[in-house]
Amino acid sequence: MDASGTPSGWPLDDRGPAYGDGLFETVLLRDGEPRLWAEHLARLARGCRVLGIPLPARGELERPLADAGQGLAVLKLILTRGSGGRGYLPPAEPEPRLRWQVLPFAPAAGRWEKGVRVRHCRLRLGIQPALAGLKHLNRLENVLARAEWSDADTAEGLLCDSEGQLVEATCMNLFWQREGRLETPRLDRCGVAGTLREALLARLPVQEVGMGPEVLDDVEALWLGNSVQGLWPVTRLDDARGRALRHWAITPDHRALQAEAHALLGYSLPA
Amino acid sequence: MDASGTPSGWPLDDRGPAYGDGLFETVLLRDGEPRLWAEHLARLARGCRVLGIPLPARGELERPLADAGQGLAVLKLILTRGSGGRGYLPPAEPEPRLRWQVLPFAPAAGRWEKGVRVRHCRLRLGIQPALAGLKHLNRLENVLARAEWSDADTAEGLLCDSEGQLVEATCMNLFWQREGRLETPRLDRCGVAGTLREALLARLPVQEVGMGPEVLDDVEALWLGNSVQGLWPVTRLDDARGRALRHWAITPDHRALQAEAHALLGYSLPA
Repeated sequence: MDASGTPSGWPLDDRGPAYGDGLFETVLLRDGEPRLWAEHLARLARGCRVLGIPLPARGELERPLADAGQGLAVLKLILTRGSGGRGYLPPAEPEPRLRWQVLPFAPAAGRWEKGVRVRHCRLRLGIQPALAGLKHLNRLENVLARAEWSDADTAEGLLCDSEGQLVEATCMNLFWQREGRLETPRLDRCGVAGTLREALLARLPVQEVGMGPEVLDDVEALWLGNSVQGLWPVTRLDDARGRALRHWAITPDHRALQAEAHALLGYSLPA
Repeated sequence: MDASGTPSGWPLDDRGPAYGDGLFETVLLRDGEPRLWAEHLARLARGCRVLGIPLPARGELERPLADAGQGLAVLKLILTRGSGGRGYLPPAEPEPRLRWQVLPFAPAAGRWEKGVRVRHCRLRLGIQPALAGLKHLNRLENVLARAEWSDADTAEGLLCDSEGQLVEATCMNLFWQREGRLETPRLDRCGVAGTLREALLARLPVQEVGMGPEVLDDVEALWLGNSVQGLWPVTRLDDARGRALRHWAITPDHRALQAEAHALLGYSLPA
């Protein structure tokens, strides 16, 4: 196990930069305490099982917490399979490499209150059940999708898979309320299973569903969320060219799910 | 442009290790001269266009050639988008980072002569036309597929996409002869467009086809090839559990395509 934080980077023969052969976690820290830490550790452990990378001891994963000061910060942990192997063939006994950064952070609290404008992305996610749900280092689809717009007024882009099912946003999960029921897209074929989503699924009656984007015509409320930014109500949905498809007013329903999510993250609620 | 060879690696904030946000090329060098260099440069340029990464000047890309000595070697070039951006959003003006290794190399010449045993992989490639053909750094599918077997007798694994069409092997392209005609899988939905494949398509009447693996029941000859190893005749095809599905004897047809490929790489032919 080779573990270090700033300023060490990756050696030339590491399989992370070579193949994206690894995993990452982006963790909200408050006064040095990680939020949803159990969920982050569980996702990392699942990723290690799937990829065949030895999971570092918990003490190793918690070493970066000593670098955090008071207030809010984000810990970015990257775990690669390390060096070695012959081409794509992984080494029989990988020695994983752990790197981290602790960065100052302030959430976009204005979006909690006023909600956000989002758009559909043109890019379709490839279907790959073997990697679905993992926060692995193969993120070119997210990069290409995020590059589809540059106006600061558009907060996120929604992604469908190659068969047309709604999956996620570029760095957030989706939640909606339809006929009074909470739903979120299934993530068994692609997408990242966010830790905030995991925590909400464990605490609330949220159904995982497989639906095309037309479902959004019928939802009373739509949210985007992740474990760092919290939950954003969506007030406007655009097509991939930025033309409005739908508007939503923010309702007490929006605030109810935000209250659940923000309690998990230690965030306040809009007044 | 930040360019260097061994021993520099990647800094912690580079987008290559973070997201696989980059491209690579693996180039055969003979006495310091790159083979199929025009094809490698063309693929890298196409990848840069698709990903929006500035293409380094040719002089930068050729600096590593000075590190090569006499005889055979392999140059591995990795080009990332560099540091910066906010999350997945690429920086408006990326400063790409180029790293390389020059490694001693000897091709598996016994496989040229005696042919190889290959197997079908269980993993299916996700369909992603936006990235198809590129040699980008998101290679977890190849890593997982290559991890499906460990016996040294099996040289490669064949991959189908999620809709069941045959695409490639884990690090090689496929070619076959059917009713006297040369064919290779289309790569417009996934897979890596190898430079040896490009060069053969430009010189010979090879048809690009979309077929399931059942086509292999009907082929007179099957080859695997890339720009480093040359062309291997396939003499045995196994299912994903290692049980033989088909055998082929090596024929003059096998040697004919090998002669074309090996002329491009400067390799000899089996006696």
